[in-house]
Amino acid sequence: MTSPHRYTLTISCPDRAGIIAAVTGFIAQHGGFIVEASYHTDQETQQFFMRQEIQADSLPFSAAEFDTFFAPLAQEFAMRSQLTDSAIKKRLVLLVSQQDHCLNDLLHRWRSGELLVDIPCVISNHENLRSFVEWHGIPFHYVAMQDKAAGFARIAALFDAAQGDIMVLARFMQILPPALCSQYAGKIINIHHSFLPSFIGAKPYHQAHQRGVKLIGATCHYVSDELDAGPIIEQDTLRIDHADSIEDLVRYGRDIEKSVLARGLRYHVEDRVLICGNKTIVFR
Amino acid sequence: MTSPHRYTLTISCPDRAGIIAAVTGFIAQHGGFIVEASYHTDQETQQFFMRQEIQADSLPFSAAEFDTFFAPLAQEFAMRSQLTDSAIKKRLVLLVSQQDHCLNDLLHRWRSGELLVDIPCVISNHENLRSFVEWHGIPFHYVAMQDKAAGFARIAALFDAAQGDIMVLARFMQILPPALCSQYAGKIINIHHSFLPSFIGAKPYHQAHQRGVKLIGATCHYVSDELDAGPIIEQDTLRIDHADSIEDLVRYGRDIEKSVLARGLRYHVEDRVLICGNKTIVFR
Amino acid sequence: MTSPHRYTLTISCPDRAGIIAAVTGFIAQHGGFIVEASYHTDQETQQFFMRQEIQADSLPFSAAEFDTFFAPLAQEFAMRSQLTDSAIKKRLVLLVSQQDHCLNDLLHRWRSGELLVDIPCVISNHENLRSFVEWHGIPFHYVAMQDKAAGFARIAALFDAAQGDIMVLARFMQILPPALCSQYAGKIINIHHSFLPSFIGAKPYHQAHQRGVKLIGATCHYVSDELDAGPIIEQDTLRIDHADSIEDLVRYGRDIEKSVLARGLRYHVEDRVLICGNKTIVFR
Amino acid sequence: MTSPHRYTLTISCPDRAGIIAAVTGFIAQHGGFIVEASYHTDQETQQFFMRQEIQADSLPFSAAEFDTFFAPLAQEFAMRSQLTDSAIKKRLVLLVSQQDHCLNDLLHRWRSGELLVDIPCVISNHENLRSFVEWHGIPFHYVAMQDKAAGFARIAALFDAAQGDIMVLARFMQILPPALCSQYAGKIINIHHSFLPSFIGAKPYHQAHQRGVKLIGATCHYVSDELDAGPIIEQDTLRIDHADSIEDLVRYGRDIEKSVLARGLRYHVEDRVLICGNKTIVFR
Repeated sequence: MTSPHRYTLTISCPDRAGIIAAVTGFIAQHGGFIVEASYHTDQETQQFFMRQEIQADSLPFSAAEFDTFFAPLAQEFAMRSQLTDSAIKKRLVLLVSQQDHCLNDLLHRWRSGELLVDIPCVISNHENLRSFVEWHGIPFHYVAMQDKAAGFARIAALFDAAQGDIMVLARFMQILPPALCSQYAGKIINIHHSFLPSFIGAKPYHQAHQRGVKLIGATCHYVSDELDAGPIIEQDTLRIDHADSIEDLVRYGRDIEKSVLARGLRYHVEDRVLICGNKTIVFR
Repeated sequence: MTSPHRYTLTISCPDRAGIIAAVTGFIAQHGGFIVEASYHTDQETQQFFMRQEIQADSLPFSAAEFDTFFAPLAQEFAMRSQLTDSAIKKRLVLLVSQQDHCLNDLLHRWRSGELLVDIPCVISNHENLRSFVEWHGIPFHYVAMQDKAAGFARIAALFDAAQGDIMVLARFMQILPPALCSQYAGKIINIHHSFLPSFIGAKPYHQAHQRGVKLIGATCHYVSDELDAGPIIEQDTLRIDHADSIEDLVRYGRDIEKSVLARGLRYHVEDRVLICGNKTIVFR
Repeated sequence: MTSPHRYTLTISCPDRAGIIAAVTGFIAQHGGFIVEASYHTDQETQQFFMRQEIQADSLPFSAAEFDTFFAPLAQEFAMRSQLTDSAIKKRLVLLVSQQDHCLNDLLHRWRSGELLVDIPCVISNHENLRSFVEWHGIPFHYVAMQDKAAGFARIAALFDAAQGDIMVLARFMQILPPALCSQYAGKIINIHHSFLPSFIGAKPYHQAHQRGVKLIGATCHYVSDELDAGPIIEQDTLRIDHADSIEDLVRYGRDIEKSVLARGLRYHVEDRVLICGNKTIVFR
Repeated sequence: MTSPHRYTLTISCPDRAGIIAAVTGFIAQHGGFIVEASYHTDQETQQFFMRQEIQADSLPFSAAEFDTFFAPLAQEFAMRSQLTDSAIKKRLVLLVSQQDHCLNDLLHRWRSGELLVDIPCVISNHENLRSFVEWHGIPFHYVAMQDKAAGFARIAALFDAAQGDIMVLARFMQILPPALCSQYAGKIINIHHSFLPSFIGAKPYHQAHQRGVKLIGATCHYVSDELDAGPIIEQDTLRIDHADSIEDLVRYGRDIEKSVLARGLRYHVEDRVLICGNKTIVFR
């Protein structure tokens, strides 16, 4: 599970001929070795998106220096670009409530070296998961949510103090205020326990049971200021039938929630997700 | 593909102890050999549902006589029961528009002996599929839909004249009037090209593309007087990604539409679907 | 997650008319309320299988007394029958090696009340998982496997001392001796990291990568004296593609291994699995 | 369903830095507009593979002239390259036996404009599908297979006379002689009715039923001189259970066979499949 040292370059810009040639030409000119490359043009917006993984030691400059060298090209094509360095781990803050299936799953992936992030802390509005989190050597912060405004202010303060890059709502069960969503746009990831846009809001498994659907689902998405309406990163469904009670749906649902969140989060951590309006491009 | 001669007994009644014993006792007392048996209690309504396939030649009476012998038991348990005879094929009327993927799929299943129904006719508001239908030796009726009321009256008349048992809207693209839906409740099956309740109504693939979902779906359901809201028989989903255009969704969608409709229709034809309020029990 | 008190009656016997009537008649005669019922006849062996869940408090006798009352019927139909009591939890012994994804998953299901078993101990030939297991309050036994015979004798002794009902090889990575497999036939469950019968034996993900398959899988099965050839309880597959390295397959594979083992084990724990020759009937 | 005029450039060569830059630089230098681009390096062989779709009218030369201009670059990087023109349809010859589910499916995709090929003829060792094929206006050739050598010689002659590019064994049920496989290597596509490498050879559904697997599958692969061992293009699986008879497996299986063959064939027709040893790279 040793992971090679790589730079990941993601770019978006107006589409036109010659972009790939210009970018790969720049990389080649500096001796860079591309190990993975993905491209996409969004037809509606005529916006071009690309992602490339480059062997870090094949380039003569650091991630920090890259921007300086790349600036003329970026300007010529009106690019928004970002270079991340696999040696610098993103910092993930987990928000949980009482249910711990997603937490348990993500902490296992983290401690087994599959999820390559730092976890500065876990935040919860309940105490019941403290012992499990602390067993991992991770600080656990209890935040009371009776006073919502104070609670969310405290969460934002903890996230900032932890220098968090990603906030994951691992079944946090609290609706974030729009201001917080805007402040951390593109940084907050939620797992919703339905196949969105079906069954928005509370108790989606009850809604699904009531409607008599034959599949249930889960959706990993960026949080936006409209409830359950942010850009979707990943989804999946699972077959059920008439014999399944609401409790069965909840139980099955935990398994898809875990796997959909884990996959979606991984894509984000590896800079595979580019946001295009209210949609995502996911370069798997 | 020879299919054995069987009776299928479906029953619904208020739940209580002893129903299975009473029904299977009745069958055993007459020497009946049960080859498949399924049971379900709906917890909300406390309604009991059962389905049993019995070797026809193990019973001393015909399907027609069955009711007389079974009446006392049915009355004791307040049962609604139905016995169907596999030797008597249901009569299926297909309604199509210009797209023929579901028609092509169902006609193949029919001519290869997999779909055990009679098809007295195909009805369409376009002429383009006449030759293909008639190649199968099946009458093809063109019905103009410019005048909706007259069109639907003609369809009802053709269905009645054909002594139809099932009307399948195989991408018919016309919204049936509520009166027709009520008149043939439980007999009209539609294939909707989304994972309901997502994307009700027109152009679901466009809606799906717009929302940026990562899976598309199809739903086979009984038609009720509320659009796309009738009891769901079968559903399925398929993975897509950002690179797929609306045209790609339409193309992939055809494949799920075909398979979901074929499965749902098969369940109905084999008397595996029991309606419970706005939900279905499907004894697969 | 409170679970109602139920008896589960599983039966196998030669097929003939009247079995369901006789068994459900017996239950009804004693006032028993059946809440779930499943039947199957294996066509090759003409053996009949059934499983019924009965509300425990609707019957006038205990699980222990049941046999006495049921004996005449069992004899008449040459039945092998078993009644289990949901109030008496099965005792599960987990065997692990160094990889802990299945262990982590099962322990979470256990501590959250989803997996209704007692876990008297975990056995491993490595020390690295001791702390995690003991955090759960579960005894952890290290067994050296350098001397295979002594190691397996120690495992059998620990299993017997723990009064184990089920031994789960949660990626134990050691091939059990045939004598042990025979001694605990039907009690040892393994998770194999391929879609059996493909890629039997060591390093199945390497074999899969080598062959260039487009899906990988996992198989939960009873251990028999022939390697990876025992009755299959549950399987699943997952799509991969050419871009996935062996390490990717191993990583994806962990997720199917976890879910396939969890499902298969649940079926076994709930007495849903009946063995028929080298196949299983799984009454879901 | 109008499809834009495009060139598809596929390349394989030893991996090194700068390949993408060189190729996309060449295209950009001539004003070419890339609409889809995919890259892969096979780690074992260190062979690089790429596929690019280019708007045909953005390049100043025809597909035929392309090679001349591209030759110096191809030589420098030791490339094997191929440029295909979407305006020139591939010629597909279908070989069938008595079962027609794959034939029916492919002919529907062809006549609805989804499968963009020409079909110069269908060949069969039975007469039963003549009428259906000829209804499509496609010549149907009966070839007796009692004398295998003569039969296969006749098939090769018909394929050559039809100027066939692809030979699809749509459930042809005859094992091709090794010489024929070698002669048309990379041009013959078979659909095998199991999840290879499970259940190689005859009657795979019987083998699957015998083994008691919980999923069945289908595999679309290039035919090589070793039975069912050629490079795999596409696979899928489907859940079954103990209640399914061999006849049920055959019936379900037809649906996966159809969809797996249709997908695999589409990838091949669109030049998305590159062969690497006994594996395939499929740029979807």
